[in-house]
Amino acid sequence: MASNNITEEKNYLNRNKREEEEDDDETKEGESVERIFEKKEVPSWQNQLTLRAFVVSFILGILFSFIVMKLNLTTGIIPSLNVSAGLLGFFFVKTWTKFLDKSGFLKQPFTRQENTVIQTCVVASSGIAFSGGFGSYMFGMSEIIAKQSTEAHGAQNIKNPSLSWMIGFLFVVSFLGLFSVVPLRKIMIIDFKLTYPSGTATAHLINSFHTPLGAKLAKKQVRELGKFFSFSFLWGFFQWFFTAGDDCGFVNFPTLGLKAYQYKFYFDFSATYVGVGMICPYIINISLLVGAILSWGLMWPLIETRKGHWFSEELSPSSLHGLQGYKVFIAIAMILGDGTYNFFKVLGHTLFGLYKQLTVKDAILPIASGSSPADSTAVSFDDKRRTELFLRDQIPPWFAVVGYVTIAIISIITVPYIFHQLKWYHIVVIYVMAPILAFCNAYGCGLTDWSLASTYGKLAIFAIGAWAGAANGGVLAGLAACGVMMNIVSTASDLMQDFKTGYMTLASPKSMFVSQIVGTAMGCVISPCVFWLFYKAFHDLGVPGSEYPAPYALVYRNMAILGVDGFSALPKHCLTLCYIFFIAAMAVNALRDGLGKKIARFIPVPMAMAIPFYLGGYFAIDMCVGSLILFIWKKVNKTKADAYGAAVASGLICGDGIWTLPSSILALAGVHPPICMKFLSNKQNSRVDTFLNS
Amino acid sequence: MASNNITEEKNYLNRNKREEEEDDDETKEGESVERIFEKKEVPSWQNQLTLRAFVVSFILGILFSFIVMKLNLTTGIIPSLNVSAGLLGFFFVKTWTKFLDKSGFLKQPFTRQENTVIQTCVVASSGIAFSGGFGSYMFGMSEIIAKQSTEAHGAQNIKNPSLSWMIGFLFVVSFLGLFSVVPLRKIMIIDFKLTYPSGTATAHLINSFHTPLGAKLAKKQVRELGKFFSFSFLWGFFQWFFTAGDDCGFVNFPTLGLKAYQYKFYFDFSATYVGVGMICPYIINISLLVGAILSWGLMWPLIETRKGHWFSEELSPSSLHGLQGYKVFIAIAMILGDGTYNFFKVLGHTLFGLYKQLTVKDAILPIASGSSPADSTAVSFDDKRRTELFLRDQIPPWFAVVGYVTIAIISIITVPYIFHQLKWYHIVVIYVMAPILAFCNAYGCGLTDWSLASTYGKLAIFAIGAWAGAANGGVLAGLAACGVMMNIVSTASDLMQDFKTGYMTLASPKSMFVSQIVGTAMGCVISPCVFWLFYKAFHDLGVPGSEYPAPYALVYRNMAILGVDGFSALPKHCLTLCYIFFIAAMAVNALRDGLGKKIARFIPVPMAMAIPFYLGGYFAIDMCVGSLILFIWKKVNKTKADAYGAAVASGLICGDGIWTLPSSILALAGVHPPICMKFLSNKQNSRVDTFLNS
Repeated sequence: MASNNITEEKNYLNRNKREEEEDDDETKEGESVERIFEKKEVPSWQNQLTLRAFVVSFILGILFSFIVMKLNLTTGIIPSLNVSAGLLGFFFVKTWTKFLDKSGFLKQPFTRQENTVIQTCVVASSGIAFSGGFGSYMFGMSEIIAKQSTEAHGAQNIKNPSLSWMIGFLFVVSFLGLFSVVPLRKIMIIDFKLTYPSGTATAHLINSFHTPLGAKLAKKQVRELGKFFSFSFLWGFFQWFFTAGDDCGFVNFPTLGLKAYQYKFYFDFSATYVGVGMICPYIINISLLVGAILSWGLMWPLIETRKGHWFSEELSPSSLHGLQGYKVFIAIAMILGDGTYNFFKVLGHTLFGLYKQLTVKDAILPIASGSSPADSTAVSFDDKRRTELFLRDQIPPWFAVVGYVTIAIISIITVPYIFHQLKWYHIVVIYVMAPILAFCNAYGCGLTDWSLASTYGKLAIFAIGAWAGAANGGVLAGLAACGVMMNIVSTASDLMQDFKTGYMTLASPKSMFVSQIVGTAMGCVISPCVFWLFYKAFHDLGVPGSEYPAPYALVYRNMAILGVDGFSALPKHCLTLCYIFFIAAMAVNALRDGLGKKIARFIPVPMAMAIPFYLGGYFAIDMCVGSLILFIWKKVNKTKADAYGAAVASGLICGDGIWTLPSSILALAGVHPPICMKFLSNKQNSRVDTFLNS
Repeated sequence: MASNNITEEKNYLNRNKREEEEDDDETKEGESVERIFEKKEVPSWQNQLTLRAFVVSFILGILFSFIVMKLNLTTGIIPSLNVSAGLLGFFFVKTWTKFLDKSGFLKQPFTRQENTVIQTCVVASSGIAFSGGFGSYMFGMSEIIAKQSTEAHGAQNIKNPSLSWMIGFLFVVSFLGLFSVVPLRKIMIIDFKLTYPSGTATAHLINSFHTPLGAKLAKKQVRELGKFFSFSFLWGFFQWFFTAGDDCGFVNFPTLGLKAYQYKFYFDFSATYVGVGMICPYIINISLLVGAILSWGLMWPLIETRKGHWFSEELSPSSLHGLQGYKVFIAIAMILGDGTYNFFKVLGHTLFGLYKQLTVKDAILPIASGSSPADSTAVSFDDKRRTELFLRDQIPPWFAVVGYVTIAIISIITVPYIFHQLKWYHIVVIYVMAPILAFCNAYGCGLTDWSLASTYGKLAIFAIGAWAGAANGGVLAGLAACGVMMNIVSTASDLMQDFKTGYMTLASPKSMFVSQIVGTAMGCVISPCVFWLFYKAFHDLGVPGSEYPAPYALVYRNMAILGVDGFSALPKHCLTLCYIFFIAAMAVNALRDGLGKKIARFIPVPMAMAIPFYLGGYFAIDMCVGSLILFIWKKVNKTKADAYGAAVASGLICGDGIWTLPSSILALAGVHPPICMKFLSNKQNSRVDTFLNS
C-alpha cells in the first residue's frame, strides 16, 4: 500500500474549485457540443497519435516536471496544471500546424483528439513527479532527512537517492496503475456515468479551443500567459542576482518587519505562489493563513515560553525532541485526522453509490450529486455519439489482466533487490489489495474529484512498517511500500479523469492508453533526472529553513518511525496536543459537511491549515496576495478575470518554474550571484558598518 | 539682478510639452468656449475671492511646497504643477460645495473664476519655493556648501540659514515682481495677444472642468490621481522601514549591478521621478540619459585614469581640485552655454516682435508663432467677451507705481541689514534695471513659454559679485543679488501666465491680483518653514551622495566664486573642456533650431544633459522608466493615456512628496527605521557573515 500527500493536496484544491464550476458545465452541456462538431471527422486512433504530439508532450513534460519538482521541494502544495497543459499543448501544435499550413506542408489538421492525447501524455508524465515521492517518501529515505529525525539513523533505514535505482523503481511500479484502470473504464464512465469534474472541465476547455470562436479566446489566453510567463521568468532572473548568501535576496525580504520575519510571516515575492494563490479557491488560501496565525502566531510562541519545562533548553532548534517536534507531529495529526474523516466519508459514498447502482438495475442515470436527472434527455445526442466512439476501439480485458500480472511478477522479483528491507510477500499483499483500492479511489474521485491516494499511502506505511518491524528496517520498508502503493492508486484516479476527458472529446480509448504508456515512460526518466539536477545543484536540499526544505519528506519519515516505534520519543504534552488536533480536524470537517454550503464556505479546511504549521506563513501570504489580486480583478472586470485569470496564474507559475532550470544549471556550474541583498536590524547595521569601514 | 535655475528648468520642460499641445488649443478655441458659458453669471470680483478658496490654496500651497522643496534638494528638476493645482483645487472645493449643497447650506456655487483664483494663489505660493532659492542661491550661502568649495571659506562669505532672516528677506523682495507686472498686463494680453502656452493650457483645463461633461472627466481623473497618490505615499512609507543606515534601502538598490551602481547607474524606485518622467517630454528624459552616459559612463571614468597626471592623487573625492571639479564646472559651462544661446534667441524674438508691433500700428493680430491669423475672425466672440471683462475691473497704474516704489524703498533699507555685503547702491541698480528685464522676460515667456529668470540671475551673480569684489564678500553679495533679481523677473513671467489664465476664464484682474498677493504672502511663510523642517530633520542636507544633495547650491556658489575670482583654481585641462562644452551647448541648440522639427526632436537638449553630469544617471533612469510606461500605455490605449497620464503622474509625485512630511517629522522625533536593506558584494557578504556569526 502506498500514497502521496501531494496528490491528495492537489485534488483537494481541485475539489473546491470544481464545485463552483459544475453549474456552468451543465449549461454548456445542454447546447449539445457534438452537434457543433458533427461535421468534423474523427481520425482513426492511429492517426490521433502523431509524432508532433509526443514531441510537444515531451517538452511540456519537462517543463511541468520542473514546476512540480520545485513545488514538491518548497511547500508541497501543487495546483492542478491540467489547464496549462491543455492550453500550452494547443498553442504549440497550433503554431506548428499554422506554419506548415502556410508553407503548404500540412498533412494532417490539428484535432481536439490530438489535443487530448497531448494533455493525457503530459499529465501522465508530470504525474510521476508527484507520485515518485521526490518531496515525500522517496526523499524521506535519504540521510539528510534521517539526520533531522529523532531515531532510525542506522544504515538499514537509509537509502540515499541515486539516478539508477530511482529510474528502475519507477519503471517497475508505474505501469501497474495503468493496467488496473483499463477494465474499469467502461463501468465508471459509460455505466456509472461518474462526473469526474477535473476531467470534464479539461474536456470543456479542449472542446472550446477547437470551435472557431474558442480558438480566438485561446489565442488571447495564450498571449496573456506568455506575457506573465516572461515577466515571471525575468523576475526570477532579476532576483537571482541578489542571492549571493544564505539569508540574501527577495525570498528573505522581511516585508512585515524583522520580528514577523523571525516567525516566518513575510511576503517573499514568489511569482509561483502568487500564481498558485490565484488558482486555488479563496477558502484554501484563507485556511493556510489561519493555520499560520494559529501556529506561528500563537501556539509556537506560547510553547517556546515553556522551554526548560516541557522540553530541554539545550536542544538544537531542529531537534524533534524540542519545539520542532510539536510542529511536525501536530501537523501530522491534523493531516491524519482530516484524511481519516474523508476516507470514511468517501468510502460511505462509494458503498452507498454501489449499492444503489446494483439494486436499481435499469438506472443508467448518473448518480453523482453534481448532475441532475434532466441530463439524460437533454444530452442524449452527445451521449450517444460519445458512447459509440468510446466503445468502438476496445482494449480487450485479457490484455489488461495479462499486462497487470506480468508487470506485477517482474516488480515482485525486482523491487526487493532495490529495497532489501521490503520482502517479496509484502509486495504480493500490496498487489492483491491494490486493484480493490484503485477501484475505490477511482470511483470516489469520480464522485467527489478527490483522490485519497495519500491516505492509502499512509495506511501502507503503518501496515507494512509494523509488519517488517523496527529491527528489520521497518522505516524504509514502510516508505518503499508507500511508493509501490501510490503509483497504483494515484494513477487509477488520474487516468480515469483522462478517460473522461477522452470520452467527451471523442478521443479513442486506444490512443489514450498508448499516450498514457508513453507519458508514463517519459515521466519515469524525466522526473528522476529533474530531481537529480535539484539534488546536485542545491546542496542544502531538504534542510529546514533553506530554499528547498522539502517539508513532506520529514513528515513522511516521521510517520514511518511512528508506525514502527509508537509514541515514545515525543516531547511533553505533544501527544495530548496531537489528539486534540486529530479530533479537531475531524470535527471541523464534520462541521463543514453538516452546515449548509453558505456557512461551510467560511470554515477553514484542516488539511490546508496543517501545512503552515511546519513551514510558516510566508507562502500563505503569497497565496493570499494572489487571491487578493484575483478578487480585486473580479470586482473591477469579472468577464476578463474569468477569461484570463487562469492564464495569468499559469504564466506566473510556469515562468518562475522554468527559471529553476537555468538557475540550477548556474548553481551546478559554480556561478555565484554577484550581490547579496541583506536585511539587518538597526543595531546590527551599525556594527557591520563599523566592521566594514575598519 | 537675480535668477533661478530651477524656474528655468521648469519652464524648459513646459516649453517642449506645450509645443505638442498648441494645435489642440486652437481647435478648441474655434468652438467658442464663451458661448457655452454665456448663460453662466460671472460673479463680482469680491465674490470670486471666497474664504474656502484661500483655505484650499493654503493646504495645496503646503503640499506643493513640500514637493517642490524635495525636488529642489534632490535633483533640481521640477515639473509644472499647474495642472495638479487646478485639478486638486477643483476636487477640494467641488467636494465641499457638493456636501454643502446636499445639506442645503450652499450660499455660492463653485465657478471657474474661483477655480482660477485658487490656481493662481497656489502657483504664487509654491513659486516662492523655487524663487526662494532654497536649493540654489540661498542654500549656497551656507557653511555646508562653502566647505565643499575650493575657497571663500571666510565668515564674510558664509551665511547659514535661519528662519527669521529668510522670511524677512522673502517678504521684502517677493512683492516687487507683482507690482511690476500690473501695468504690463493690458499690453501683453490685450494689445500684443501673446499666447502664454502654459497659462492657456491651464485655462482650457479649468474651462473643461466646469462644463458638465468636463466635470465627469475631472472626477475620474481625480480618482486616478487619488489611487496613485495613495500608492505612492504607501510605497514611500514602506521604503522608509528599510533605510536604517546610510547606504540602505531601495534608494540604493543596485538594480543594474554593483559596478553600474558605483557610477550612479541604477533604478532607485522613486515614485516621484517616475511621475516626473511621465510629465516631461520624451526628449528631455532621453537627453538626461544621454548626458548621464556621456559623463558617468564615458568622461569621468576616462578622466579618472588621468589621476596623478591631471590632478593630485591625494585629494578627497569631493574636492573641486580633483574629479569633482570637472563634474561641477563642465556642467556649469554647459548650462551657461545653453542659457546664453537662448538669451540671445529670445531677445532677438522680443526685439523683432516689438519692432513689428510698433511699426504695424493697426495689427492687433497675434504675432506669436503658435497662433494663425484665422483666429481673429473665428474667436471674435470669445475675445470680445473676455476683453470686456478683463478691462472692467482695472487696477490703476498709479497704484502699481506707488506700490513698487514703496516696497523698493523698504527693501533698499532692510536688505543690507540682512546681507551687509550687499550695499544699498547695488540694490538701487537692481531695482532700476529690474522692470526692464521683467518686461523682457514676460514678453519672451509669452512668445516661447520659456522664462529666462535663471540666466538673468547668473548675470546678477557675475555683475554684482565682481562689483563688490572678493575682498568685500563678493561671493555672498552675488548670491544675494541673485535672490533679489529672481523674485522680480521670475514672478513677472509666472504671474503673467496667470493673468492669461484669468483672461480666458473671465476671472477679474482685481481678484487675481489679490489672490497673488495672498499667495505670495503665504509662500513667504510656508516655504522657509518647509525648508527649515528639511534642514533640521536631515542632517546631511547638501552633502554630495546623501539623500538630499541639493546639487544646484554648490553650482551657484561656484559660479559666484568664478565671478569674483576667475579661473585660477580649476584642475588641469578643465577650462579647455569647459570651453568645448560651452560651445557645444550653443552649437547643439543652433542645430535644434536650424534643422526641421522632425529631426530636431531627436537631438538632445544640452541644459537637460548637463544635470546628470554632476548627479549621476539614477534619476534619469527613473524618468526614462516613467517615459517608457507612458509610451507603452499610449501604444495600448491612447485615449486613456492622454486622459489620465497627467493625473497618474501627479498622483505619483504628490504622494511621494507628501510622504516627506511624516518622514521628516519622524526624523525630527528621532525615530529610526528598524531595518537596513543592505547590498553587499559576494566577497563582502562572506566577510560580514563570518563577522556576524563570530
